[in-house]
Amino acid sequence: MTSLTLFTPAGALAKSANLTRAAKRLTKLGFDVAIDADALARDQRFAGDDATRLAAIHRIADAAPSIAMATRGGYGMTRLLDQLDWSRIAKSVEHGTRWVGYSDLTALQNGFIARQKGLSMWSGPLACDDFGRSDADGGVDEVTQDCFLEAMSGALEAVGFRAPSPEFDGLEARGRLWGGNLTVLCSLLGTPHWPKVKGGILFLEDINEHPYRVERQLLQLQQAGVMDAQAAVLLGDFSGAAKSPLDRGYGIKDAIAALRARTKTPVLTGLPFGHVRTKVCLPVGGTVELYVQGREAIVGWQSDPRLAHAAHHHEHGDDCALDCGLHH
Amino acid sequence: MTSLTLFTPAGALAKSANLTRAAKRLTKLGFDVAIDADALARDQRFAGDDATRLAAIHRIADAAPSIAMATRGGYGMTRLLDQLDWSRIAKSVEHGTRWVGYSDLTALQNGFIARQKGLSMWSGPLACDDFGRSDADGGVDEVTQDCFLEAMSGALEAVGFRAPSPEFDGLEARGRLWGGNLTVLCSLLGTPHWPKVKGGILFLEDINEHPYRVERQLLQLQQAGVMDAQAAVLLGDFSGAAKSPLDRGYGIKDAIAALRARTKTPVLTGLPFGHVRTKVCLPVGGTVELYVQGREAIVGWQSDPRLAHAAHHHEHGDDCALDCGLHH
Repeated sequence: MTSLTLFTPAGALAKSANLTRAAKRLTKLGFDVAIDADALARDQRFAGDDATRLAAIHRIADAAPSIAMATRGGYGMTRLLDQLDWSRIAKSVEHGTRWVGYSDLTALQNGFIARQKGLSMWSGPLACDDFGRSDADGGVDEVTQDCFLEAMSGALEAVGFRAPSPEFDGLEARGRLWGGNLTVLCSLLGTPHWPKVKGGILFLEDINEHPYRVERQLLQLQQAGVMDAQAAVLLGDFSGAAKSPLDRGYGIKDAIAALRARTKTPVLTGLPFGHVRTKVCLPVGGTVELYVQGREAIVGWQSDPRLAHAAHHHEHGDDCALDCGLHH
Repeated sequence: MTSLTLFTPAGALAKSANLTRAAKRLTKLGFDVAIDADALARDQRFAGDDATRLAAIHRIADAAPSIAMATRGGYGMTRLLDQLDWSRIAKSVEHGTRWVGYSDLTALQNGFIARQKGLSMWSGPLACDDFGRSDADGGVDEVTQDCFLEAMSGALEAVGFRAPSPEFDGLEARGRLWGGNLTVLCSLLGTPHWPKVKGGILFLEDINEHPYRVERQLLQLQQAGVMDAQAAVLLGDFSGAAKSPLDRGYGIKDAIAALRARTKTPVLTGLPFGHVRTKVCLPVGGTVELYVQGREAIVGWQSDPRLAHAAHHHEHGDDCALDCGLHH
């Protein structure tokens, strides 16, 4: 059985019910689920004070379960970055631990790959957000679940998505995949936690940020030389922000157009990732290949050879390949 | 008469009434007011497209009025930074033009001082926000007006404020003053528009940003080495954000405490600056001295010798000195 530990590195969980539900569902899916002792800790808006959350991460790194999955994001990871023992976390990854999450976890993932050239973490679901929802609240998204199972088993070697237009037909790019939540990523800029990836493939998403704020951050990355230095940029979901009467038609399309007008780097939209129900898993820090044929885009990578055996026997493998993309 | 040109470099003005009112009031205060041809331009949420706003700034730089005052902030300055002709703007400042504003103007001011070591701009009121309000909406704040008049005449040599506690009693610091709106300033980090000020006095304010977002940016500046490199940090107003039930008591005080726990640089609060009615004028890029006696803090600087004559004859000089601080 694949061991999976749930931990809460940033914001506190509002209700324990979602955690219980997530643990049950993940157990039913075949994982040997453990809940970290401080997963339900509370200190103001945080899941315990900094020392508590730091200790939890180090404890999990030392235990090195097959999967270390965050229960939720929120805010709190960047508070810990200066004190994290990155080599301790690296040992767990070398040992095979797959750290999974998104949103605030962007800080952990990118801070990690800033220091660890050959290692990666997984941008993917959060236990409570994606596996903890009651059935009345929509339950678990099937594509998200299947992709997660495939990624964790080692079977997932690619995700595919449909671009809104065929303008990038024929595009081929190869590089280190990095990024995640735009605001969290930008909060690392200028710090030692910033991964100075050149020739990479940068993916970005955000939630509840007005398009002008998204644009301001995209332009910051452009002005910082980050966009021009990438082989490609993949944009996921940017929704949730309230429109303003001042917008007069200005929206996320204009923000993306402002970026495209300033960089020659291909900026693709449509990546099924972000604070949305349906999200793929992506290896942050891994080397990926991007292919576009017509409107079909594929992000592919080599699966972990250590997990090849598991992959062959994973019952969800084929279904997910069709659901969340295409193997190549 | 002192020439004053109003221009709109970022967000479009929602109503022309506020501009008309501001122009009338500033005329009544003795300024020879001109309104830039594109001050009421509109392109989606912007005061005209990028080329229009860029041309306005360059046009004003070339005309070099005594005062170049922005009508409002919003979002839009960072779109222009890469294309601004900074030396053209520098010529106007050398010629005596005082560029005034705050909020989104933080990008112009700090981008400018990033390139111009000995020159400064003015962090101070925005025409429509501070002089355009109808009487029913509160009219003009007296302290803001008096400080503005003093600063523009050259009489203002210091602003004073009362710190919440006497913990910094005896503090003396000297350095280049810089900063402004926290979010706008952070959007320059990592770009060529970032002023790499060492040993400076950094002032910050923000509006409608939840304390956790303020904290994330303060910690980013800390992690980037910016906080430790300053002689002092002055915090203005950080209000306007809706509280969340997740906060459980967490607020701006905790955000400031998180910063203070991580830097030895004195972090003072209480600076009367930000998106509030009462705001002082501060020379962004100028060398200032900070003195604290008990709870009384004073930020002082040498007035512009070119304006010394005007200063002596300015009728508002003495009143404002008492209202918005203390001369030293």
